[in-house]
Amino acid sequence: MLKEWHDQLESMYEQMVEWRRYMHQYPELSFQEIETPIMIVSILEGYGIEVRKNVGGRGVVGIIRGAKPGKTIAFRADFDALPIQDEKGVAYKSKVEGVMHACGHDGHTATLLGVAKVLSAHRENISGNIVLIHQHAEELSPGGAIAMIEDGCLDGVDYIYGTHLTTSAPTGTYLYRSGYTMGAADSFDITVQGKGGHGSSPHQTIDAIAIGTQIVNQLQYIVSRGVDPQKSAVLSVGSFHAGNANNVIADTARLTGTVRTFDKELRGYMENELKHIVKGVCESFHASYEVVYKNGYPSVNNHEEETEVFKQVMKEENHVFEMSPIMGSEDFAYYLEERPGTFFFTGAQNTEIGADAPHHHPLFNFDEKAMLFAGKAFLNLAYHYVVEQSEKTKEEVLL
Amino acid sequence: MLKEWHDQLESMYEQMVEWRRYMHQYPELSFQEIETPIMIVSILEGYGIEVRKNVGGRGVVGIIRGAKPGKTIAFRADFDALPIQDEKGVAYKSKVEGVMHACGHDGHTATLLGVAKVLSAHRENISGNIVLIHQHAEELSPGGAIAMIEDGCLDGVDYIYGTHLTTSAPTGTYLYRSGYTMGAADSFDITVQGKGGHGSSPHQTIDAIAIGTQIVNQLQYIVSRGVDPQKSAVLSVGSFHAGNANNVIADTARLTGTVRTFDKELRGYMENELKHIVKGVCESFHASYEVVYKNGYPSVNNHEEETEVFKQVMKEENHVFEMSPIMGSEDFAYYLEERPGTFFFTGAQNTEIGADAPHHHPLFNFDEKAMLFAGKAFLNLAYHYVVEQSEKTKEEVLL
Amino acid sequence: MLKEWHDQLESMYEQMVEWRRYMHQYPELSFQEIETPIMIVSILEGYGIEVRKNVGGRGVVGIIRGAKPGKTIAFRADFDALPIQDEKGVAYKSKVEGVMHACGHDGHTATLLGVAKVLSAHRENISGNIVLIHQHAEELSPGGAIAMIEDGCLDGVDYIYGTHLTTSAPTGTYLYRSGYTMGAADSFDITVQGKGGHGSSPHQTIDAIAIGTQIVNQLQYIVSRGVDPQKSAVLSVGSFHAGNANNVIADTARLTGTVRTFDKELRGYMENELKHIVKGVCESFHASYEVVYKNGYPSVNNHEEETEVFKQVMKEENHVFEMSPIMGSEDFAYYLEERPGTFFFTGAQNTEIGADAPHHHPLFNFDEKAMLFAGKAFLNLAYHYVVEQSEKTKEEVLL
Amino acid sequence: MLKEWHDQLESMYEQMVEWRRYMHQYPELSFQEIETPIMIVSILEGYGIEVRKNVGGRGVVGIIRGAKPGKTIAFRADFDALPIQDEKGVAYKSKVEGVMHACGHDGHTATLLGVAKVLSAHRENISGNIVLIHQHAEELSPGGAIAMIEDGCLDGVDYIYGTHLTTSAPTGTYLYRSGYTMGAADSFDITVQGKGGHGSSPHQTIDAIAIGTQIVNQLQYIVSRGVDPQKSAVLSVGSFHAGNANNVIADTARLTGTVRTFDKELRGYMENELKHIVKGVCESFHASYEVVYKNGYPSVNNHEEETEVFKQVMKEENHVFEMSPIMGSEDFAYYLEERPGTFFFTGAQNTEIGADAPHHHPLFNFDEKAMLFAGKAFLNLAYHYVVEQSEKTKEEVLL
Repeated sequence: MLKEWHDQLESMYEQMVEWRRYMHQYPELSFQEIETPIMIVSILEGYGIEVRKNVGGRGVVGIIRGAKPGKTIAFRADFDALPIQDEKGVAYKSKVEGVMHACGHDGHTATLLGVAKVLSAHRENISGNIVLIHQHAEELSPGGAIAMIEDGCLDGVDYIYGTHLTTSAPTGTYLYRSGYTMGAADSFDITVQGKGGHGSSPHQTIDAIAIGTQIVNQLQYIVSRGVDPQKSAVLSVGSFHAGNANNVIADTARLTGTVRTFDKELRGYMENELKHIVKGVCESFHASYEVVYKNGYPSVNNHEEETEVFKQVMKEENHVFEMSPIMGSEDFAYYLEERPGTFFFTGAQNTEIGADAPHHHPLFNFDEKAMLFAGKAFLNLAYHYVVEQSEKTKEEVLL
Repeated sequence: MLKEWHDQLESMYEQMVEWRRYMHQYPELSFQEIETPIMIVSILEGYGIEVRKNVGGRGVVGIIRGAKPGKTIAFRADFDALPIQDEKGVAYKSKVEGVMHACGHDGHTATLLGVAKVLSAHRENISGNIVLIHQHAEELSPGGAIAMIEDGCLDGVDYIYGTHLTTSAPTGTYLYRSGYTMGAADSFDITVQGKGGHGSSPHQTIDAIAIGTQIVNQLQYIVSRGVDPQKSAVLSVGSFHAGNANNVIADTARLTGTVRTFDKELRGYMENELKHIVKGVCESFHASYEVVYKNGYPSVNNHEEETEVFKQVMKEENHVFEMSPIMGSEDFAYYLEERPGTFFFTGAQNTEIGADAPHHHPLFNFDEKAMLFAGKAFLNLAYHYVVEQSEKTKEEVLL
Repeated sequence: MLKEWHDQLESMYEQMVEWRRYMHQYPELSFQEIETPIMIVSILEGYGIEVRKNVGGRGVVGIIRGAKPGKTIAFRADFDALPIQDEKGVAYKSKVEGVMHACGHDGHTATLLGVAKVLSAHRENISGNIVLIHQHAEELSPGGAIAMIEDGCLDGVDYIYGTHLTTSAPTGTYLYRSGYTMGAADSFDITVQGKGGHGSSPHQTIDAIAIGTQIVNQLQYIVSRGVDPQKSAVLSVGSFHAGNANNVIADTARLTGTVRTFDKELRGYMENELKHIVKGVCESFHASYEVVYKNGYPSVNNHEEETEVFKQVMKEENHVFEMSPIMGSEDFAYYLEERPGTFFFTGAQNTEIGADAPHHHPLFNFDEKAMLFAGKAFLNLAYHYVVEQSEKTKEEVLL
Repeated sequence: MLKEWHDQLESMYEQMVEWRRYMHQYPELSFQEIETPIMIVSILEGYGIEVRKNVGGRGVVGIIRGAKPGKTIAFRADFDALPIQDEKGVAYKSKVEGVMHACGHDGHTATLLGVAKVLSAHRENISGNIVLIHQHAEELSPGGAIAMIEDGCLDGVDYIYGTHLTTSAPTGTYLYRSGYTMGAADSFDITVQGKGGHGSSPHQTIDAIAIGTQIVNQLQYIVSRGVDPQKSAVLSVGSFHAGNANNVIADTARLTGTVRTFDKELRGYMENELKHIVKGVCESFHASYEVVYKNGYPSVNNHEEETEVFKQVMKEENHVFEMSPIMGSEDFAYYLEERPGTFFFTGAQNTEIGADAPHHHPLFNFDEKAMLFAGKAFLNLAYHYVVEQSEKTKEEVLL
């Protein structure tokens, strides 16, 4: 039967490409999505799928209820775009000035719609349910996931899976990892308030640049001395701005930066130490300060068992690789804090057709064939949970 | 006879105020002076004084030739204004938007014109010559002095004196000092060229902010370790700008600052060390860099003997004080590198009439009576060099 | 048959304990071992095992030649002690002042001797050979391994395995890991040569303490900015000594420290960057310097396939765990650079009998029962390579 | 009459040399002087001078009471030696192992004894009194001056003068200065208490070396940013000691240093800022610390009027120069905090006889002729205050 599902997905390919290209031409920014969710709803309803709109704001949740009881498995696809100008020379390039699907979320959405069509035609064989989470606003903190969860999108869900197309790996490959897979990304904004004055009279001032440099300097010690060398953590100061004239001592310095970690405890440590150092340095210079520390998405911490399931259901595929953790972040992390599951990557690189620019690049594009690979993985997972496993359970019952 | 000169100057007072207020209403920026030099020429020629125009660009040099041979003494007055909006509530406030005589150069000029009128009437009694240096562009490096000197304004001159009105001391006072009196002011502009990248991957970048902070930090050691504690030197970084985003490592950092010294050798040392440190730090981080180091005016180094002369000729005055050196700078320094002389300050503060705002302030004004004090000092000096001293010489000859 | 081997090892237990306690009473320092290798030779020869003495200096290599051809598998046990005073209250405590088997190498040796006895009795069943590497001087760089390898101890060897007893894990457990398992440990010694002078005249000196602090400071940036956050690296300055008087500026500063890495490329990077930073900082302060950088043992990089073999042959055991890499170092690393193999840990902690002090501690002791566990692992491995596998090969031939 | 005094002093020369050379052979360390004060007492009493012994411990105070009332002027000479081995090749070199008059205090004492002899013979001409302060322990903080003052050595004294022989200036010269002339010298001793651990696990430690370097670094900012560039201040860290092994992170770091200033307020500022920075840095690293800050002698701040008197009474001399302030310190400072006076230097350099080694050097010696110059200065001052001035007063009374 799984073979049949795969064939049906393949027959959807033209349709999936069409959907994807339409979204590609009309991309919508995070938290500003209007037409995309309407389109998704319309397609899902067209297949007779039960839909809930405006979930957590702009999200859409479809549910395919199987004929028999069983587990409920959720798939997630995000659908927001980025404030980047599309510079590709293709017919379906973005028609919205300065907005672009530069990360492949259009592909995620088209894939899940194709998968939905296939599964919705097999309700009879399904023991359990399939939840289709079409999420808005992945690109912009606080993200759509957290709001959709609060609005109940995981209610009744037993497992959750998601994927990201990636131009870092060729089409046909899959990358998985158990445990920490993507980083937590936090940001900070430090304002040092000293006292300005003439450049020739430093003793009458509190030199904000001197203080800012000591902060940058001492922050290095968090990673070099405070973090377990076996663990990963990054603290980068991304901007430093102070002063307007060479002969005037700056009264204010503003520093912003990013903190990346996997480990939850370490994440808290970094925040505390950063604040502690800013306090210590500013006080030792008699300056006042403000630190705004913003928690971004937590780390994506894939569950071991569900990752194992992924490996099992993909064992017919030739190119399934374990990946190293990466420091980029994803709000899929929130789902994994609530439910067991895994987030994997689906290769979508094809240098022959120019699908090899990095994500978030004005020339980004992906190999549309990759949507079939992503879709098959979802179908395999669905088959495992709502067909195979329930049969096993039956067997167990029989025995 | 000196008493007679003083009286004649006092009788010029109304005229001096009129000149000053006219200039005050029509201020001209450094290196853009057109009308002011024309007015000065016209007044000097009106008194039958020999004038050379466009000296070193926009300067005016008058010469009053005495009836008998003797020493040649020069007085200098600058006449440029500043890019500051006049916010005073007086009738004669600036009529030029954003331009203002906020440092009192109009007063210097009116004073010297009054002095010129008095002296031009006494050619018979003068043994030697009086050179009137009306200088443009004191406020803006490289300044007018250096160009006027190159154009010969000091040719034949034996001594040079200049004064600055100051609202830091009450009208009626004079401040003098032998040796280093005003600082040399140099500036620098450092560009660190690293290599940008994502905030989560510092190892693939050369972090310009990290490097910039090490430069700021190590520059402190020039003063704290390298400079003789008995000597004065300041190095202040006035601006630090790098990076645009919290999660992107900056590829470039730009730092500007000022260096203040009195001692010539120390001045060179500061420049060399600064460049040396930038080089060392950037190389140790594999970064490239550019340092633009601009020498501003040298320090005003008053000559001992001529300062002594000033004290002598002013001994009838009650309020002549030795001052501490100040770190501000003046291009009068260039004249003193060429000829013996001294630069003194003439008190022009009068809190009752609101003449107490700091120089370069939108409310700056000075007590116009101070022009008489400044003028008298010039007359005393002139009397000393071209009347008294030549008489002494005569006596010596007679003996 | 393996069961038989295990039983025979168990029957050796009293003997193994006796050997171990004898060595424990007469420990010998690295590169100073005289009696221990004589004892080892005598025991091996007593079992009719072919022995080569003085291998790479003080090492002993035994070889048990099987009746039939096959693979050659080597086991290594080190036998040197440490310059630590034994403070235990046991009858068999060290009789040598200040020298002690505080790391368990006596247990490694007794284990391998027991294993040798068992295997030497089964030559007829063995297809291939067993090489017994009794290594001197593991505790002191450059270590005995490298010299024994140069002297041919690995000639003809196909696989090599080694173990370390550990009081960090309870008796009965085994810890394994594929890939980087123990760190590379390098050390450095930096001398900064400045110019001394009176504390009140820093400008006449080159302050070695100021320079030393800048070096320590900038070295932090290697880890915080230069190292891939996904990789492990440590650079610690362990000592800083400069100056003798509060009012004299130090002319010299001496800093020593350690560098720990797993990755070979990263190891080289650390060394280069350290030297580069010392150079940059010293030059920027006009100081001279010397850096002595000493490479210690490389990282223990266990081979994937042979680690898998270990897991397979141990699958009957209940307590075999994957371990995290640790930063300690071992010269077993050199064998693994030459031959495939793995280095695993055998739990030897028993709090009830006080066997839980950390290694290198004056109260260190291990649970002697652990020798049986270590020995069984060796027997299992031997069985796999020289009995089972050769049978399989036979089967394959037959098929 | 002054001429007569001078002549009488010159006739004392052989005697003064003899005294000086005797003391030179039997030098006594600070606070350990026994024979020297006995000798001084004996000589003074021999001249019929009233003497008070054990003043403030080991000091001796003589008083020459004039026949008529008038001002009381004090002269001070110190008499302690240094813990330095005399390496000179002269007959009168030190006979005490490791102790030496390496700063010329023997010369000061012999000078004042000669002056005492001369003045004691002229009581009839003296209106007022001469106080002879022979002070112990100038070389070792807290010094003898403060104790002698507490014990009343300045009771009734109107003016105090002192001199130091110096091999930095040729015999025959005098150096004076009004205002700050010698520095205040304070010292500090900082202990940073972190938490030790293995060099490979910095995250389990609080690295005392890292913290110590941040302290040294941030202390530079006191001078570079906090001190008025027109004022002199030095802060030097003279020693930094931490750690015993390259692979162990140090738990403790100890730093000592010196602080030099002239200005009293600035002196307090330096101490406060140092403590403030140590606190800030240690707190930001979660370390504890101790700072011991020891105030040494304050700065020698010569009184303007009495320095003017010195210039006046020395106007017949050819080589009286104004000196720059020096950063060395002297406990004569305490007398000047209580009474008006001045501390001047008397040249004692004579390269022809090898009297040119720096003070505190094992080859230090001074030109003994300088004692006559120092003595004449005292006589001139005495003459001014107790002969001339009282005559003037008389005149004034008469008028």
